[in-house]
Amino acid sequence: MEISGLQFIGYTKSGKGHDQFYGINPKTNKNIKPVFLEASKEEIKNACDLSVNAFYEFRKTSSKNKAEFLNEIASEIDKLGNNLIDLCSMETGLSKNRLIGERARTMNQLSMFADLIMEGNHLDARIDTAIPGRKPVPKSDLRQMQIPLGPVGVFSATNFPLAFSVTGGDTASALAAGCTVVVKANPSHPETSELVASAIVSAAKKTGMPDGIFSMIHGKSNHVGLSLVKHPAIKAIGFTGSFKGGKALFETANLRKEPIPVYAEMGSVNPVFILPDALKQKTADIANGLVQSVTLGAGQFCTNPGICFSINSDARNDFLKKLKHNIENNTGNVMLNERISNSYFENIEKVKNVHGVKLIAEGKTIASKCSSRATFLDISYVDYEKNTDLKNEIFGPSTLSIKLNTNQEFYDAARKLEGQLTISVFCTKKDIQEFKELIYILELKAGRLIINGFPTGVEVCHSMHHGGPFPATTDSRSTSVGTAAIKRFLKPICYQDFSQDLLPDALKNDNPLNITRLVNGKLTKDKIKVNGE
Amino acid sequence: MEISGLQFIGYTKSGKGHDQFYGINPKTNKNIKPVFLEASKEEIKNACDLSVNAFYEFRKTSSKNKAEFLNEIASEIDKLGNNLIDLCSMETGLSKNRLIGERARTMNQLSMFADLIMEGNHLDARIDTAIPGRKPVPKSDLRQMQIPLGPVGVFSATNFPLAFSVTGGDTASALAAGCTVVVKANPSHPETSELVASAIVSAAKKTGMPDGIFSMIHGKSNHVGLSLVKHPAIKAIGFTGSFKGGKALFETANLRKEPIPVYAEMGSVNPVFILPDALKQKTADIANGLVQSVTLGAGQFCTNPGICFSINSDARNDFLKKLKHNIENNTGNVMLNERISNSYFENIEKVKNVHGVKLIAEGKTIASKCSSRATFLDISYVDYEKNTDLKNEIFGPSTLSIKLNTNQEFYDAARKLEGQLTISVFCTKKDIQEFKELIYILELKAGRLIINGFPTGVEVCHSMHHGGPFPATTDSRSTSVGTAAIKRFLKPICYQDFSQDLLPDALKNDNPLNITRLVNGKLTKDKIKVNGE
Repeated sequence: MEISGLQFIGYTKSGKGHDQFYGINPKTNKNIKPVFLEASKEEIKNACDLSVNAFYEFRKTSSKNKAEFLNEIASEIDKLGNNLIDLCSMETGLSKNRLIGERARTMNQLSMFADLIMEGNHLDARIDTAIPGRKPVPKSDLRQMQIPLGPVGVFSATNFPLAFSVTGGDTASALAAGCTVVVKANPSHPETSELVASAIVSAAKKTGMPDGIFSMIHGKSNHVGLSLVKHPAIKAIGFTGSFKGGKALFETANLRKEPIPVYAEMGSVNPVFILPDALKQKTADIANGLVQSVTLGAGQFCTNPGICFSINSDARNDFLKKLKHNIENNTGNVMLNERISNSYFENIEKVKNVHGVKLIAEGKTIASKCSSRATFLDISYVDYEKNTDLKNEIFGPSTLSIKLNTNQEFYDAARKLEGQLTISVFCTKKDIQEFKELIYILELKAGRLIINGFPTGVEVCHSMHHGGPFPATTDSRSTSVGTAAIKRFLKPICYQDFSQDLLPDALKNDNPLNITRLVNGKLTKDKIKVNGE
Repeated sequence: MEISGLQFIGYTKSGKGHDQFYGINPKTNKNIKPVFLEASKEEIKNACDLSVNAFYEFRKTSSKNKAEFLNEIASEIDKLGNNLIDLCSMETGLSKNRLIGERARTMNQLSMFADLIMEGNHLDARIDTAIPGRKPVPKSDLRQMQIPLGPVGVFSATNFPLAFSVTGGDTASALAAGCTVVVKANPSHPETSELVASAIVSAAKKTGMPDGIFSMIHGKSNHVGLSLVKHPAIKAIGFTGSFKGGKALFETANLRKEPIPVYAEMGSVNPVFILPDALKQKTADIANGLVQSVTLGAGQFCTNPGICFSINSDARNDFLKKLKHNIENNTGNVMLNERISNSYFENIEKVKNVHGVKLIAEGKTIASKCSSRATFLDISYVDYEKNTDLKNEIFGPSTLSIKLNTNQEFYDAARKLEGQLTISVFCTKKDIQEFKELIYILELKAGRLIINGFPTGVEVCHSMHHGGPFPATTDSRSTSVGTAAIKRFLKPICYQDFSQDLLPDALKNDNPLNITRLVNGKLTKDKIKVNGE
């Protein structure tokens, strides 16, 4: 397939913009052809207008049709074959093996949402039957279910060119919810984006979906994304990226005439608490695991463990030695792009110069404008608390190890934490007896708590929550991974005294979708019996 | 019980402020003694700080204890007896009968939430069991449930001094969720607020709840409420009131260092669509019902029907005649306070002067500074669409009847509607055949659709959705009435590889709470079987 470098306005490719950019191979720092055009204002408007029209059609389609569409996207992505992996690896610097895994995850996600909507729990169908003779006033028949919010704007992430990009979690969950989607493609992997967009368009055509169910616009400049957020047709935003980027979208959305929800996942430092007995008993395992987790994929994960608390002890000295040994053997990988690499090294330099920060060890690095270098730093808790800059995420393969002097400082550190995506606790049974209250405090600080494990590796399932209190995300009530992600694109509607023919299938007496519903307060798949039937 | 006029900072009454105000009897326009003190900055801070401490304790209590507390509040409110009804009627001008009904609703709400949390579905418990041998990577044990957001700020409404006030829907659902509450009392019924606050405090003490689980601050000035919204301890806001008030809280909350969700229900015009055949077949019934619904409680309901579409016809002329006859017999009631009454008459004057507006009829009025007067106005659709002022809610007993010339104008009007709490459609089977698509459009415009009924009368049940797209509320995903309201004060947390002793009861293998859970994708109350057990 030839890459066009154009916008996808529904089923039509469009190139009305003037600003241009290229995808770049981070290993060679050379442009990849062809050139890409940024979307013009008119093209953004066209994509949004078409998205509204398509939304009116799409939300009428049955769950079965929606599921077919989602499965068909997965199948079309599969058909892109090695071409997708090769191109994606070239423009992201990520290994082919990693991308093969990520493609599988992307396809699994699509089928998982297909299964979810066939099963119907996401509709949260509720029925309270009428009591016409109730005193002092009759009770009406009331039924409620979830319906889609409307067209959704999805911002692709840089670090997951498949699973959090054009047909990543946000697109999959929005389509599953019945929303149409306008993707703002990530300028760091435009070729990959076009291939995946073409797969979605093929799947949409094959399954008879309305033109405009999916559009994709390009833009390296901020105004492209901001125009998308400002367009009145757009009713929610999904975003994965930096704090600065997410916050800007959130603020823009709140200033609209009609404010809309922004689900921005903005990363976090993902603290690791290594409790005293665990540090002693599992020194080597934790040191190995930490280096592996921090350096995985050049540390370019939202869940990368960026700080790590442990108590001053012989075990800790031993732990730092083991870290040092492991890190020094690490051969630095190329990062996703030059901006990310520059920003990583700048941030590391800044932290190195903070009073009290000592270098534990550095890894090797490669000759590239997009290089990285694993960097493990050490600081006392007292010095750490003096400098708020140390609490910001550094995107890349680094960790700051923080030396506590008392058990009480674990509690103090926990209480002072900002919102996080994840917090990991390494502990033995003995530790738990002493620190149960600590875990209780940590519960309010993160979306996911992990016992004796590292946060990288986010399982896509029903129980996953990939979110957390601000500043990890702009909405602690919502997840961007797992089936619960569908909730972010749904809202309730209540039907009062609707006749059977007017009600949607999910709420009809005879339960034609055979879904679980809350009928007069009880979960059941039973049909509703009414007088004389 | 003697009214103190003081703040409730947890279990302690406090009077450190300097600004004063009185409750006012709207029938006589005279102050009611004693004087009330506005909360000082220090008192607001104390209430919030205490709320955080209490939150850490409260969220540990079992659902059973929380349910006992909620039921005890209901019982303490009951004990306030006629004193509550008399005082409340005096300071609101609402009839005793209405208030007896509202008290019952308030108590029912509390027990409904008690039942809900005992039943446990609100926890949305999810379990995905581990697959240690999975390739290429083992699958962790992942479990998810909902936990409370934290201390909640609740703004009492003027128009429901019991059911949307100190222990109204927001307080009840926040406490049920496990959140502590700081209420900003409504200055229009401070005596009622103090009586109800004392009932909550008694119930809290009796059931062993932590000091600070509930606080209440007074303030006629905006800065009291804004200080509450700005305090970092507060993690969500519930509000029912004007668009201006709700929007101000929303904006303030978004500008915090840590933005928080604001659930502001800001009212709407609650359009009524009277389709042609229904207008012809049920002229008198609809006219009677409309006048009743519009004038009920001096029109002081969020769900008051403020505009009404019907097509130019003999039936419509007949309908207007019947409206006229009914309205002229209406004896105007006193409104909640002088500000509301003044604002009502000012708005009516403004609308009367809009080009094309004709008076259908006015009701009678009484001699009072807080009087009202039922006012029904008429305008053509063309003129209506020319003036956006006509789309704003007028709080009080008025309706604007809009004359359409073609069926197509029903669709046009529907498409142009802003977000509403409710939309009512009067229709016959014949109408439905012609207008099915119209209902489909209206679904996206309101939180609740009503067939052949009026929107006043909001049933408190599982299926109720009292919410709607902006500007009806600041969050279309949330309801302020019914059991689903508990969701607004909850957020998910995921536990990865937690041992049984560390997990909360809701997620333990043996399901000690006996709740329905999503286990590996299936809803079940079954225990989890693990190897060797």
